[in-house]
Amino acid sequence: MPTESKVDVLVLGAGPAGLMCAQGLKRAGVNVRIIDKRPKKVAAGQADGVQPRTIEVLQSYGLAERLLREGNQMHMAFYNPSPNGGIERTGRTADITAPSARYPFEVTLHQGAIEAIFLDSMRELGLEVDRPIIPTALELSHDENELRDPQSYPVKVTLKHLDFGSEGQDDTEIVYAKFVVGADGAHSWVRKTLGIIMDGEQTDYIWGVVDLIPSTNFPDIRNRCAIHSSNGSCMIIPREGDKVRLYIQLSDKDVVVDKATGRVDKEKTKVGPEELLEVARKSFSPFTIEKAGEIDWWTIYLIGQRVAQKFSVHERVFIAGDACHTHSPKAGQGMNASMNDTHNLIWKMTYVLRGWADISLLRTYEFERRKYAQDLIAFDKKFSALFSGKPRTEECQDGVSHEAFLEAFQTFGAFSCGIGIHYSPSSIPSMPNITELKHQSLTSHQTVGMRILPHVFVRAADARPFEIQDLLPANTKWKLVVFVGDIGPGKIKQIERVAKLADDLGKSTGLLKRYEDGVFEILTICATVKECLNYTDLPEVLRPHWSRVLLDDVDMFGRTGGKGYDIYGVDPSQGAIIVVRPDGYVGTVTPLEGVKDLETYFDTFLIRTL
Amino acid sequence: MPTESKVDVLVLGAGPAGLMCAQGLKRAGVNVRIIDKRPKKVAAGQADGVQPRTIEVLQSYGLAERLLREGNQMHMAFYNPSPNGGIERTGRTADITAPSARYPFEVTLHQGAIEAIFLDSMRELGLEVDRPIIPTALELSHDENELRDPQSYPVKVTLKHLDFGSEGQDDTEIVYAKFVVGADGAHSWVRKTLGIIMDGEQTDYIWGVVDLIPSTNFPDIRNRCAIHSSNGSCMIIPREGDKVRLYIQLSDKDVVVDKATGRVDKEKTKVGPEELLEVARKSFSPFTIEKAGEIDWWTIYLIGQRVAQKFSVHERVFIAGDACHTHSPKAGQGMNASMNDTHNLIWKMTYVLRGWADISLLRTYEFERRKYAQDLIAFDKKFSALFSGKPRTEECQDGVSHEAFLEAFQTFGAFSCGIGIHYSPSSIPSMPNITELKHQSLTSHQTVGMRILPHVFVRAADARPFEIQDLLPANTKWKLVVFVGDIGPGKIKQIERVAKLADDLGKSTGLLKRYEDGVFEILTICATVKECLNYTDLPEVLRPHWSRVLLDDVDMFGRTGGKGYDIYGVDPSQGAIIVVRPDGYVGTVTPLEGVKDLETYFDTFLIRTL
Repeated sequence: MPTESKVDVLVLGAGPAGLMCAQGLKRAGVNVRIIDKRPKKVAAGQADGVQPRTIEVLQSYGLAERLLREGNQMHMAFYNPSPNGGIERTGRTADITAPSARYPFEVTLHQGAIEAIFLDSMRELGLEVDRPIIPTALELSHDENELRDPQSYPVKVTLKHLDFGSEGQDDTEIVYAKFVVGADGAHSWVRKTLGIIMDGEQTDYIWGVVDLIPSTNFPDIRNRCAIHSSNGSCMIIPREGDKVRLYIQLSDKDVVVDKATGRVDKEKTKVGPEELLEVARKSFSPFTIEKAGEIDWWTIYLIGQRVAQKFSVHERVFIAGDACHTHSPKAGQGMNASMNDTHNLIWKMTYVLRGWADISLLRTYEFERRKYAQDLIAFDKKFSALFSGKPRTEECQDGVSHEAFLEAFQTFGAFSCGIGIHYSPSSIPSMPNITELKHQSLTSHQTVGMRILPHVFVRAADARPFEIQDLLPANTKWKLVVFVGDIGPGKIKQIERVAKLADDLGKSTGLLKRYEDGVFEILTICATVKECLNYTDLPEVLRPHWSRVLLDDVDMFGRTGGKGYDIYGVDPSQGAIIVVRPDGYVGTVTPLEGVKDLETYFDTFLIRTL
Repeated sequence: MPTESKVDVLVLGAGPAGLMCAQGLKRAGVNVRIIDKRPKKVAAGQADGVQPRTIEVLQSYGLAERLLREGNQMHMAFYNPSPNGGIERTGRTADITAPSARYPFEVTLHQGAIEAIFLDSMRELGLEVDRPIIPTALELSHDENELRDPQSYPVKVTLKHLDFGSEGQDDTEIVYAKFVVGADGAHSWVRKTLGIIMDGEQTDYIWGVVDLIPSTNFPDIRNRCAIHSSNGSCMIIPREGDKVRLYIQLSDKDVVVDKATGRVDKEKTKVGPEELLEVARKSFSPFTIEKAGEIDWWTIYLIGQRVAQKFSVHERVFIAGDACHTHSPKAGQGMNASMNDTHNLIWKMTYVLRGWADISLLRTYEFERRKYAQDLIAFDKKFSALFSGKPRTEECQDGVSHEAFLEAFQTFGAFSCGIGIHYSPSSIPSMPNITELKHQSLTSHQTVGMRILPHVFVRAADARPFEIQDLLPANTKWKLVVFVGDIGPGKIKQIERVAKLADDLGKSTGLLKRYEDGVFEILTICATVKECLNYTDLPEVLRPHWSRVLLDDVDMFGRTGGKGYDIYGVDPSQGAIIVVRPDGYVGTVTPLEGVKDLETYFDTFLIRTL
């Protein structure tokens, strides 16, 4: 008889999407299990670029410090054909063009090291990946009552332990799960088992990848380089330590494609890492590049650009990461989209499992993330075409010029770094009387549906500067960021408005009392300088702890902080309440008199206890 | 028969001085043992203030990150008698007034947490504190040859294991050590055994200390507050979490002093934590303060201000920390002076043990640190008198005014934060032809004998900004920081000078070859902007790795960096070589043509291999 067990969430696949999911759920106290078919974690190669928004997200779980310590940070250089033959540098620029990026660079670190950050933090929380295990069957109940009840176990998954057979143990196991997340990669077993179709197509762009420690006289080997040469295109991605990744464009003459699978037939293709490096050398001329030591990892692939038609079945089995979208790796998006998929799901699943929110909240996962995946493919098509195109030279006047490439690079900047992600209004179930956008004008620079802008404020009690994002961690709570305006000496009218807000918030059946305890955290931001305010001046409901009152002021040395009301576009004589979702995105904005609007907003998806 | 063993360095006492010493020696690969009489590490109370320079030092060992995460950072507020009775705030200011402080704040964290940072990092290196153990005898050889030979074991220490007796084991152990460090506190057994006299005297300042979580309406409870009230003086030190320490001035009527020991007789003194809090309440009026929960820790003491006459015997047994200097705790110096004592000793002892430097180098420990301790006592006398003095009021016109206190506070600022530590020239054994100060004018803002100034430069190869102190870690190496000047396009003369320097440095019997491998690290800083320089432009000896070339330029976003030559006072058309000791202090400065002077400098204390 196979072992049987129950679990709230079963995560299939321990790549970046699955690990993000499992650590976030575990951190939220959810009963979660994660399995993977590989006997060990990835050691080298694979994805390696972490975009600015993903760094912010990792920071919100307390995981960015190690990434920043171990990873490489890179900027950009462009090389194009030189009139003298070979290539020459046509420019250097920042890799990241989004002005509001808190971390204005892309970090590169091999996937194994990124997975280790998750694995070590999970271990501290008491969660390990079960491996090597594969799922062999998945059954989802058809009973509508069962599907609607978040406390039921409608998913039956059969698992096979790959390391059990030889010891005579039964290698089969049955798990009953409330929810299943399929984060099992581009060739997702979960997706195929559910019969979810991928929309899109294979491209004819073929690329080789080589990871190595180079010996070279190329002066930009530590910058991300887009090399357009008359001998082909090449991209350099510097990595942790002295490692460098080369992306090398190949032609269909070099490679044999298996027509059945649409994948490169590595057996029949005669190109190996040495041949890839030889192709790269032609692009590098007149500079030289040799390997110092062994090739670390290599691969060859065709770019597919596809999005799954559905991201879940009945909001009980979900797919995430490469299982729902594949695209070219050169813009460094894959791992980022994957981690942000499950980052979006964690808090929603947690709320439903806790009985705090209606199960319909989970529909917003597909609504928000599928839209993003479609945008990503559209972006990737443009970027890949530009990057794979011939460079413009005297002979090739319709090629891609440096200026055109640079312009496209900068136009796509906000999107590719993840800062531009913008969830549509009413992705949270629609509201009867207001929309999230009703009061958008109160925060003219903080768009509803986008992540809360980073900015440094100083704490009123001790003048210590803090990045606001660090005070809004991914701890499953909704944050009410109350910009109370200027309440310094003599600002009677604003002080009265704030007193009224405190009364509204403190009501016995009001916002702070009508849902489960622990839904909300309050952070108060005053447009008053430190000389003119004590934290004790605020009404108590707006200072649940001395650390929760901030000032829009510079620090003691004028090194950081100040002008925060401008950054968010809030008028200090008005104020505003910015509602930040547990994943760091802004849910809605209201005036200080908007507590009723907030009650309406939250009533649409939170379950009332009063 | 007692167990006998040999060790290179035996450290007696696992407080901040001993732990700093042991972790630094272990990190340098020295065979070190550390013992302590306490069965467990300190859990609460004791010292708690970490000054800016000490944070820099901890960072140089990779230990500051956790301190900054766990500790509190504080600024300053002043309260004085109000004309209406009680007290009122007369000002708020930065706690740290040294403009070059990299960390412009004092961190407070209880001693147990600080010790834990050392203990955990030592554990990773494979070193634990042996405890509970006390030394019972110490014999130092009188044989001059033995004392001069750094590889001999001239110190015999008898140890007693306090937890052995009951199991019938022999609780005695004999250790033969090359060197012994007595970091065993104000009542040092090592100091007494060596017969070293403390110069100085007891004061009549009596203070009580209470650690608690307060419930209060005092608006500056999270700032370091100097309260001068007509009912006595009080200092508030906010701590980690919600904890606060109160220093409360007592009069000799409140306390019974044991005339034999000069210490407070806690048995006969009727004052306990509740009484201390009651005294504090009088200073706080009209504000209220109550304890929320239990008193965490408390004590009462008389301030002694003393310095040991000698800091070592024959450079084989050393004393460090409270064992060589005691002073008042209110300026937050004790733990800092202690850690910086052994930080000064670590690299010197390592060089002598490795056979890289003459044993006479160890004399500079007493020369440098005793001078500092004397300055510290002089500072403490002035500060304590001001702080314990009556406040100036209408009735008390000769009291200490807010202005006088503030001025003194700011005058003492550079010293009290540790940034001002200035080792005298020729503390390194004197040099025949030059002095370290000969070329001081080449770095007009970087004083020889003071710590290397912090500043952000960008790396030439990838434009990533770095704090220079992080590139000069406490890894026992001497750093040659080569300010090559502006070597951009057309700067032919400076490029030629740099080529000549590279030739001088590369000579087969020259500076980089004549001592043991691993003495030097080179860091090159160009006064050229990133658009105009490739790291590959530098001669190879000045770029031993791509990461070792920096530019004096802003980062890609203009957020940090730039104007570094101004900070150090180096002329970009001249350049300079700044020689940084392994402990971060500047040893000497030379022009680019000064390689001969450097050879002369290092020949005075490094042992030549060629």
